[in-house]
Amino acid sequence: MVDGDGAADVITPDDVREAAARIGPRVRRTPMIDTGRETFGLENSVTLKLELLQHSGSFKARGAFNQLLSAELPPAGVIAASGGNHGLAVAYAARSLAVRAEVFVPESSSPVKVARLRELGAEVHVTGHFYADALAASIERQAQTGAFAVHAYDAPAVVAGQGTVALEILQDEPGLDTVLVAVGGGGLIGGAVTVLDGRARLIGVETDGTPALHEALAAGRPVDVTVSGAAADSLGARRVGELGFMACLTHHVTSLLVSDEDALAARRLLWEELRLAVEPGGAVALAALLTGAYVPVPHERVAVVLCGGNTDVTTLA
Amino acid sequence: MVDGDGAADVITPDDVREAAARIGPRVRRTPMIDTGRETFGLENSVTLKLELLQHSGSFKARGAFNQLLSAELPPAGVIAASGGNHGLAVAYAARSLAVRAEVFVPESSSPVKVARLRELGAEVHVTGHFYADALAASIERQAQTGAFAVHAYDAPAVVAGQGTVALEILQDEPGLDTVLVAVGGGGLIGGAVTVLDGRARLIGVETDGTPALHEALAAGRPVDVTVSGAAADSLGARRVGELGFMACLTHHVTSLLVSDEDALAARRLLWEELRLAVEPGGAVALAALLTGAYVPVPHERVAVVLCGGNTDVTTLA
Repeated sequence: MVDGDGAADVITPDDVREAAARIGPRVRRTPMIDTGRETFGLENSVTLKLELLQHSGSFKARGAFNQLLSAELPPAGVIAASGGNHGLAVAYAARSLAVRAEVFVPESSSPVKVARLRELGAEVHVTGHFYADALAASIERQAQTGAFAVHAYDAPAVVAGQGTVALEILQDEPGLDTVLVAVGGGGLIGGAVTVLDGRARLIGVETDGTPALHEALAAGRPVDVTVSGAAADSLGARRVGELGFMACLTHHVTSLLVSDEDALAARRLLWEELRLAVEPGGAVALAALLTGAYVPVPHERVAVVLCGGNTDVTTLA
Repeated sequence: MVDGDGAADVITPDDVREAAARIGPRVRRTPMIDTGRETFGLENSVTLKLELLQHSGSFKARGAFNQLLSAELPPAGVIAASGGNHGLAVAYAARSLAVRAEVFVPESSSPVKVARLRELGAEVHVTGHFYADALAASIERQAQTGAFAVHAYDAPAVVAGQGTVALEILQDEPGLDTVLVAVGGGGLIGGAVTVLDGRARLIGVETDGTPALHEALAAGRPVDVTVSGAAADSLGARRVGELGFMACLTHHVTSLLVSDEDALAARRLLWEELRLAVEPGGAVALAALLTGAYVPVPHERVAVVLCGGNTDVTTLA
């Protein structure tokens, strides 16, 4: 990556490969499963990348480990603001590396995630309605303590870490044509497109209530969006990160929207057909296939990243 | 397998390989995941075979497909008695092959499984307290209709089908030392030991309340046991099958028991650490490791089969 004055950071495939080597022993290599055609009633079989089985319940552990292992950390440890999954990942990585962690989360975070953060030994502050509010509070606190701030998505080491998901996908399923991923702040898609470009088509999916990338691509630059709905706690970035946005723009990523209802129906189907408990945000990429928002051609080989499973399981009963 | 007069059927590795070829396009090749050492706080890392992701929510789909695809089926279709998972598997396979299915389940079956059976289009009869009662009722009905009876575990094609789980384990992790599996009626372990013998140690695990194999090995022959407790709905065979018993005896399988509490604690940990929702019976093999009922030597490579996920998810909240 380039860190020169004024030049935008650009994540390279080498950054992602270096991240993979750095975090390899710390993260789980999550498996893929070919679900077969009958499962979702589609013409194409769908291969799922089971990233919800990652440490801390989402892909965010990858970026957190890569950031913590590549930074020089002060005695005050690390500090993060997060809709939940990033906070869990930072808390998990910090505990694993014996580093102090403070995490700021908005009130929209699921109680399951907040309880889990505390179990992981993080000092948790629940503050403000949206992610941006928690971020502002964490910035203020960071200025007091000097802790290392781990951004949820808009930092080169974080984006490169998330991209390792796509490296594994390519290694396990080199013949894939298309990969669908959910988009929140753009960390996962930004890292993934770097290694997928030229190898497989990458499609980013958001809900109507969390359209940060979609609106940014329409406007030609990151813009603030109003966040709402079922996926707000995991995909609810008010503004997509510069790094993810630039990567999506450069590599011509397709951006699609689905409704909350469609995301929840996809989540229900994953539970009924595979006994996989994903969070609503973790089901949006599949929803794009189920609704026909994305229609593969015959024999197109399609993978969907199930990116997180930190969810209130009673809603699946 | 040998089907001669009076000679006990013996499942051979070729039977299992033929089953794999027969059912290949119909079942999911379930993945394995190396969970890493931190996950369970053990000295050894544990690799999980995620067979709960199989069609119908358990390994039983393998045996059901192998039986239905190798038998000549009458117009009355198939009939089965089952604590739940076998019934689901037969109903799933029958629907997939456009065959009529009647399923008899005992009252101890989970409501989740009974509802799912009906969704799959099977005619469901809830009768008697234990599996043996449902089996008796199904035998009576079968005499009236002439349907093909699919046994839950004690039929050569069923045992051979279940054994395909172990074939995949060997292909994916050829360096494994030890595989732990739950035991109900002995179908899975009977098929698995056939292909694992000489390659990896196989350990069968039951709960105190479902000790059919353990008691049979102690007595030198299958004997009736009293079934109770948390795993009764999936492992609660009153008597282990002859085929599974003979395979375990011949191949010197080690049999271990765990308590209900230990099985439920293992299930809870799988949910907390991996967001995997297994049924209590699906967690007993892991429980044997967590409790120290089985203690691997340093660097021993251990796999655990998570064999089923048809569970009341609210009990994980």
